[in-house]
Amino acid sequence: MPTLRIALAQVNATVGDLSGNADRVLEWTMRAAEQGARLVVFPEMMLTGYPVEDLALRRSFVDASISTLQALAANLAAEGLGGVAVVVGYLDRRTGQLPRVGVPAGSPLDAAAVLHGGTIAITSAKHHLPNYGVFDEFRYFVPGNTLPVFRMRAEGGEPVDVAVAICEDLWQEGGPVTVTRSASAELLVVPNASPYERNKDDVRLELCQRRAREAGAVLAYANLVGGQDELVFDGDSIIVSPDGDVLARGPQFEETLVMADLDLTAADQDRPAGRHAVDAADGTTMTIERIELAPLQAPEPESGLTVPMLSPRLSDPAEIYGALELGVRDYVRKNGFGSVILALSGGIDSALTATIAADALGPDRVHVVLMPSRYSSDHSVTDAEDLVKRQGVHARTIPIAPMVAGFATSLDLHGLAAENLQSRIRGMISMSLSNEEGHLVLTTGNKSELATGYSTLYGDSAGGFAPIKDVPKTLVWELSRWRNEQAAERGETPPIPENSISKAPSAELSPGQLDSDSLPDYYVLDPLLDDYVEQDKGSAELVAAGYDPELVERVIQMVDRSEYKRRQYPPGPKISAKNFGRDRRLPITSRWREPRCD
Amino acid sequence: MPTLRIALAQVNATVGDLSGNADRVLEWTMRAAEQGARLVVFPEMMLTGYPVEDLALRRSFVDASISTLQALAANLAAEGLGGVAVVVGYLDRRTGQLPRVGVPAGSPLDAAAVLHGGTIAITSAKHHLPNYGVFDEFRYFVPGNTLPVFRMRAEGGEPVDVAVAICEDLWQEGGPVTVTRSASAELLVVPNASPYERNKDDVRLELCQRRAREAGAVLAYANLVGGQDELVFDGDSIIVSPDGDVLARGPQFEETLVMADLDLTAADQDRPAGRHAVDAADGTTMTIERIELAPLQAPEPESGLTVPMLSPRLSDPAEIYGALELGVRDYVRKNGFGSVILALSGGIDSALTATIAADALGPDRVHVVLMPSRYSSDHSVTDAEDLVKRQGVHARTIPIAPMVAGFATSLDLHGLAAENLQSRIRGMISMSLSNEEGHLVLTTGNKSELATGYSTLYGDSAGGFAPIKDVPKTLVWELSRWRNEQAAERGETPPIPENSISKAPSAELSPGQLDSDSLPDYYVLDPLLDDYVEQDKGSAELVAAGYDPELVERVIQMVDRSEYKRRQYPPGPKISAKNFGRDRRLPITSRWREPRCD
Repeated sequence: MPTLRIALAQVNATVGDLSGNADRVLEWTMRAAEQGARLVVFPEMMLTGYPVEDLALRRSFVDASISTLQALAANLAAEGLGGVAVVVGYLDRRTGQLPRVGVPAGSPLDAAAVLHGGTIAITSAKHHLPNYGVFDEFRYFVPGNTLPVFRMRAEGGEPVDVAVAICEDLWQEGGPVTVTRSASAELLVVPNASPYERNKDDVRLELCQRRAREAGAVLAYANLVGGQDELVFDGDSIIVSPDGDVLARGPQFEETLVMADLDLTAADQDRPAGRHAVDAADGTTMTIERIELAPLQAPEPESGLTVPMLSPRLSDPAEIYGALELGVRDYVRKNGFGSVILALSGGIDSALTATIAADALGPDRVHVVLMPSRYSSDHSVTDAEDLVKRQGVHARTIPIAPMVAGFATSLDLHGLAAENLQSRIRGMISMSLSNEEGHLVLTTGNKSELATGYSTLYGDSAGGFAPIKDVPKTLVWELSRWRNEQAAERGETPPIPENSISKAPSAELSPGQLDSDSLPDYYVLDPLLDDYVEQDKGSAELVAAGYDPELVERVIQMVDRSEYKRRQYPPGPKISAKNFGRDRRLPITSRWREPRCD
Repeated sequence: MPTLRIALAQVNATVGDLSGNADRVLEWTMRAAEQGARLVVFPEMMLTGYPVEDLALRRSFVDASISTLQALAANLAAEGLGGVAVVVGYLDRRTGQLPRVGVPAGSPLDAAAVLHGGTIAITSAKHHLPNYGVFDEFRYFVPGNTLPVFRMRAEGGEPVDVAVAICEDLWQEGGPVTVTRSASAELLVVPNASPYERNKDDVRLELCQRRAREAGAVLAYANLVGGQDELVFDGDSIIVSPDGDVLARGPQFEETLVMADLDLTAADQDRPAGRHAVDAADGTTMTIERIELAPLQAPEPESGLTVPMLSPRLSDPAEIYGALELGVRDYVRKNGFGSVILALSGGIDSALTATIAADALGPDRVHVVLMPSRYSSDHSVTDAEDLVKRQGVHARTIPIAPMVAGFATSLDLHGLAAENLQSRIRGMISMSLSNEEGHLVLTTGNKSELATGYSTLYGDSAGGFAPIKDVPKTLVWELSRWRNEQAAERGETPPIPENSISKAPSAELSPGQLDSDSLPDYYVLDPLLDDYVEQDKGSAELVAAGYDPELVERVIQMVDRSEYKRRQYPPGPKISAKNFGRDRRLPITSRWREPRCD
């Protein structure tokens, strides 16, 4: 049985940075070749980053992707890497197809190329285009309809046949997976840009195992790493055998090479190069396109891999925390900020946000502002100061009384208007310091608040990035406890004051105010929000599930009425099956009210 | 030749208001029947409003749409309207189809029903699903694949065959239009929800004429009227003959019945009821489904229509102004606001915004705030006061000096930070008055500012709805002049002070500041923005088109860098081919820079 050393390069691409991304391909291919890999697989849309959104519709951008790919093929050979087969995702267009309504830049393709011997040996495009959740790929792409199968040399020169599919091609029935079996390919490599979601790693593994069995091939799944606006790509690249055994698996949220020596059946020499059409079992016909790579000098492994990479799974809070940390780090870094600033209230939301930021960027790049008012409790100030001491972030205190007084001379505000004013003054102070000093403002609201509209537009919701906007309040507490426990286990000072975790939450915008004056208990609220928002259950289903009818009506009303606030909220990392962002698109103007169920 | 009196009910539906929309169908059918119409055509998704976005994925909402349709059929008959054939758009689902990934509520359909004799006689669904620009219909719907053809009685009891297609079915090649010809239907009725765009009425007419010729049938195009978040539906319903002659045409932006007496060829009695499959000439097969409506008592016209409705076309500014006015009126009304408030600076943007609001709602429901600062020129105050006098809106003056002083005690701000502070104080005052008094805050920024980022986040960009966000500065001036001329022609006081139109624009946030300090001349800037933003041209194309390379680079950089600001901007009515909203979706995090062209 021929052995093929493969490397999955789970790396961090940046949207739009074509030359930087091409440099990363070169650099990581070099590392993989040094370790003897003959085949290196990069993620989906590696050259452009993912998702590029409407950049896919701009002619100049598609042109740049194609010319960057051509230059990359030549540069790999110039660096002595021409003998390595490199699979890399990029943006292409289909020529000779009539332009489609709404797609001015030809017919863009979510494509993958095999680079070898200084040339682009073969290309293909994603067959199944996701158009649900955060994905809009029917807007951008036309579907591919070929399965490329390239013959390359394993160790000792024996031939193996490798097929290429892309991301969603695994998630749907039929198509490239089915055709891989028809083509009798020994290995199916799959570039991916699969965003993180809580517990998705389990789903992903099970999917890879099922598809490997269906394809009758080893399946090698290479996923992107990094944050891109509201998405976080978590890596977690996987290689499974045709029987579903895990052969190698990468960590989450880290760049790495996942290496493995694959024992593959030698290719049948009777399968000639060329094209032939087969039924793809999804209502379409696909073409198998076979080529043979030139038998160039390829890297030889000095010795077998001692230990295949089998990264341990993270716990639920560790995984979520990792996603938030990477999301913050990459938003800050990729947008060219050197530091962040946030309002530190002494409460748990801002405490957790500050901690994530300090972990992501280092405490020296985190600035906090304490902005006490006449309604601030003593503990809010002391808890905030305690956090500053524990973490060593930059802090300053700016009481808001003089600004409140400035407004009071001209405006006579009551109730909610007076409460919002305080919140907005704090938002303005953060934004002013951002403008003056160049920090990115982090917004500290959680998902429970965002769902119910328990926040002030242009007040606590002001900012450029909202690290915990997809984290329900009860999970905010869980992550905070987990983070402190981690510190304690490592013998470090727990970063979050215990009192910030344990005290009753309050916005402190009026005397003695508590969240529980306006909202149900978070341990009641959060599961209901999950059922309504993430599971899209109607009121009848919610009441049937055991929720109190009055509570259902009250909470649904709060959620429905605050759509306009969410629309102006900054982006933040998606960790759930349905975040407030691309995932959930509802009209602001809507008279739909779930039927009452009493 | 049998004559059929048809009514296109170009009416205003509200998203989510199922019972209210059903009531409108009843009410307008009654009016049409009183005028002798035997066939009444309502717009696409009339029962649910359009677009319903992710409500299409909620089971309870789809259920409610279906049950509302059933009740409507019965109610029409109960009101003595059972003999009228009523074509109405609604949300349905396809049963017996496997659920699709991302579509939890079965397989939703953008459907149309023919109601007759108290029952739902036949239903069908949109075949071509738009998924470009502001449309995301692959996210929601599965395509329909039947063409319903119902036989009904014209005057004197003669039979005519009527086919139904929906909106996008006209915009794409092949499909229902082609199949209408195969079915030899005499009349093709088309419910639409086609959003307004500048000059789209010309495109629409030409399209209807072409498709009528292709279908070999009279084509009756009924379009929605009304504002829905960032979309404005403009009506402009059209009936054209198979030769492309315009038989009737409705006005834009007004609810009305477009009535016509159609002379149709009697249906061939040899075409039996039933289903048969035909090639749809778009790569798919469609089924023609023929039924015959029971020969019930139908309204008889008392006499021929004296004059067919042929509404005159509006001028370019009249059309745009009409769209803005309806957009504002419906956003305010459908979201339950009684009044609006806005910051009146004396400049042209806020002057035009106030004028549109006063025209849309009446001056008594418009509140303006003058918020002068130490940098405000004399004319900014006098021009604002002049507008208040001309229009009779509610005005108050709140100088911002005390608030600026309140911040100055604690923050030492310079340059842009100090400028933004003033703008944000004004935004806060507007929001505070909104919270205290219940007005909707209107945002006064124009498209040129939004494109270049020449605005302050949470300052002048604060608010719930932005009436002129899709209007470039040069068009702001044109609309203002046009509105004043209209008034003069009617012998009314021109609502906008001449000085607000003619003076050099300034944000007045620092001494002697002018827009031209930071931006190119608007008559140079606006065409360039149109080419870059709406036409999606790259830098090479722009330079080739004759723009100065340095200007191209500078403007592109301004546009690209301010994506984060646009993301948090309130919605406003789309009037262009590509608005900042659903139409243009770009990543915030992006290192793509158009190549330099020198």
